[in-house]
Amino acid sequence: MQEEKETARIEAFSDGVFAIAITLLVLEIKVPSHEKVLEHGLAYSLFALWPAFLAFFTSFTTILVIWVHHHLIFTQVRKTSPPLFYWNGLLLLVVTFVPFPTGLLAEYLLNPEARVATSLYTGNFLAISVAFHGLWRYVSKSEGLATSTISSKRGVAARITRDYRLAPLLYLAAFGVSFISEIAGISTCLLLAFIYALRGQPTKEAG
Amino acid sequence: MQEEKETARIEAFSDGVFAIAITLLVLEIKVPSHEKVLEHGLAYSLFALWPAFLAFFTSFTTILVIWVHHHLIFTQVRKTSPPLFYWNGLLLLVVTFVPFPTGLLAEYLLNPEARVATSLYTGNFLAISVAFHGLWRYVSKSEGLATSTISSKRGVAARITRDYRLAPLLYLAAFGVSFISEIAGISTCLLLAFIYALRGQPTKEAG
Amino acid sequence: MQEEKETARIEAFSDGVFAIAITLLVLEIKVPSHEKVLEHGLAYSLFALWPAFLAFFTSFTTILVIWVHHHLIFTQVRKTSPPLFYWNGLLLLVVTFVPFPTGLLAEYLLNPEARVATSLYTGNFLAISVAFHGLWRYVSKSEGLATSTISSKRGVAARITRDYRLAPLLYLAAFGVSFISEIAGISTCLLLAFIYALRGQPTKEAG
Amino acid sequence: MQEEKETARIEAFSDGVFAIAITLLVLEIKVPSHEKVLEHGLAYSLFALWPAFLAFFTSFTTILVIWVHHHLIFTQVRKTSPPLFYWNGLLLLVVTFVPFPTGLLAEYLLNPEARVATSLYTGNFLAISVAFHGLWRYVSKSEGLATSTISSKRGVAARITRDYRLAPLLYLAAFGVSFISEIAGISTCLLLAFIYALRGQPTKEAG
Repeated sequence: MQEEKETARIEAFSDGVFAIAITLLVLEIKVPSHEKVLEHGLAYSLFALWPAFLAFFTSFTTILVIWVHHHLIFTQVRKTSPPLFYWNGLLLLVVTFVPFPTGLLAEYLLNPEARVATSLYTGNFLAISVAFHGLWRYVSKSEGLATSTISSKRGVAARITRDYRLAPLLYLAAFGVSFISEIAGISTCLLLAFIYALRGQPTKEAG
Repeated sequence: MQEEKETARIEAFSDGVFAIAITLLVLEIKVPSHEKVLEHGLAYSLFALWPAFLAFFTSFTTILVIWVHHHLIFTQVRKTSPPLFYWNGLLLLVVTFVPFPTGLLAEYLLNPEARVATSLYTGNFLAISVAFHGLWRYVSKSEGLATSTISSKRGVAARITRDYRLAPLLYLAAFGVSFISEIAGISTCLLLAFIYALRGQPTKEAG
Repeated sequence: MQEEKETARIEAFSDGVFAIAITLLVLEIKVPSHEKVLEHGLAYSLFALWPAFLAFFTSFTTILVIWVHHHLIFTQVRKTSPPLFYWNGLLLLVVTFVPFPTGLLAEYLLNPEARVATSLYTGNFLAISVAFHGLWRYVSKSEGLATSTISSKRGVAARITRDYRLAPLLYLAAFGVSFISEIAGISTCLLLAFIYALRGQPTKEAG
Repeated sequence: MQEEKETARIEAFSDGVFAIAITLLVLEIKVPSHEKVLEHGLAYSLFALWPAFLAFFTSFTTILVIWVHHHLIFTQVRKTSPPLFYWNGLLLLVVTFVPFPTGLLAEYLLNPEARVATSLYTGNFLAISVAFHGLWRYVSKSEGLATSTISSKRGVAARITRDYRLAPLLYLAAFGVSFISEIAGISTCLLLAFIYALRGQPTKEAG
């Protein structure tokens, strides 16, 4: 009982952090200044904010998918341990950081130096995929931490293992692509978020 | 049991997002600058912020009503599914966006280009009403997802169906009105929030 | 059961709003600009922020006490109703607004027009005390809404009735005092927060 | 039962405040201005933000550890009381304040007056360690407040007593060190956070 409660509190705290991080993203879309509106008009000034909207949408989708996968992992965890706490803390660190590269991309995607902003953005997501991989690797290797079903080669646990082993490679690809084309790098991140959204549904197993 | 817990976590996460979005709104009311206060006085400068107060009040009321209706929908849902998650995610996306048009309206309602700001504002609420309609349509059409009472032609479910089918039309009207008069468009949104507040009370059925 | 759950959700949402509002207050303390630091030094620039620290401390204490009293009220409520929801919504509206007058006071307490900022600040707390009074009045007058103990002339309920009837008068006094002396008005609000902190302890009754 | 619920609500509210404070930290990392990027390039401008990243990382780690220790304390508390509420309120006050010195350090660590910013930063953590010490001292000295196990000279409670008695001295050392070297002062805070992370694991006792 005590141990179940412990996991519940980690999950609730992490959920709180995800909910706040996802809602703070909108603060990175800045209302256009009166100078810009006087010069170009409000409609055009809003249209020119499309990098901010794209960054907002991509980060929102990714954090939502992170929330789903975090929950998926914790359906497999029975008790807590110090390393579980550290891995989870690392994951929270890189997720709470997301609003900064989101704001940076919103500001500098149309700048000659867009490459730097985009590589920090895709690099942040790469770091998240590594943290997820590490968290899951620890959970699945630790005896007595996971629920009984995790040891089986089939079911949710085996699917997570396959998916999370691939994720850092896929995000490394997105990171690499962002050096060739900024838009392609961001699009890859968005595509990956949609793919992992499909693969993050816990109820699928019921079928 | 597992399935009930699943809905609980979606509801808790969504509630967190609504609570944060509603509390962030106040950050869109900017303290007047010292230059403006020197020129016009503080009392006048605060009075001149009335578009910010109106936008704050309208968005606050609307998000509060969204929270009530979100809960109302989930009283009718017994288990989760991938499409439920996507519809809910779409709803959260358009709700977390609200602080941006709120800040835009606060800044540009007294500007010659107020129409653009107002149409984004009412358009955001239109998008929310469409997301609500889609979420509820999915819930009510899916077999085995909703509670048993939903199939009946009377009661909460039937009332929700009627109300949510109408909502996109009413918000489309508000969107249209905002092209004739900005204040009329915003007032329509405020009026609709009050009407849906009255129709969102789950305990009414008990009478 | 269903009704208990309903109150739990209102309480959880309100708690979320209080937790966010209390944590957002710190954003109203602005890091001093490099120009000011160059001219006066960093230590002096921080010292000159004392109105921001005072406003932060007073608002923090007040919102913490609001949280305690909100909980105290809901220990007496057994089920929800539409008017309960509206009164609670009004309370949340005036509480989420607090960061704005807090930021205004931080900026303008040392300005010749400090009176305007202080009266909005104390006026905000006056509005909160009125919303509390209205919420409690509705709860205590409604049959079937409150727990059985509320009808007795003694105990928690009777103490709340006495305390909340007085609160709007006391905050009206603070509002009035702020027109004579800004510091005295704010100090009165701080003093009232401490007094209501002492009177908001639910466990006292156990003695 | 009623008393257990009371502690649950204090814990949930405090958890909410910690989750928000930890997620707001990222807002103190400011996107570099276009002027700075034009002059130095985006990559260099980001590199020059290292004080902001260091402050973010140190504050994040510390608040995460505060969350763990707060939970550790409350595993030992059976019921609430007015003084428990005040000590907890004091702790929340100094924790919600953290984003301000974090932003100050981010802005002024490379300034000639860095000492002032660093001493406020380490001083904030010193205040937190004093609040923790006071909270725990009250809990462990109060009869009937703590769980039965707390009276024993061994186990979690005795370890907490030893650790928390030392904490204010260690943070006073960090505060002192920051007057000799800013980086050494911040590093000491970071080191202390890691040490207390190791000592904050409730499940260690199970071994």
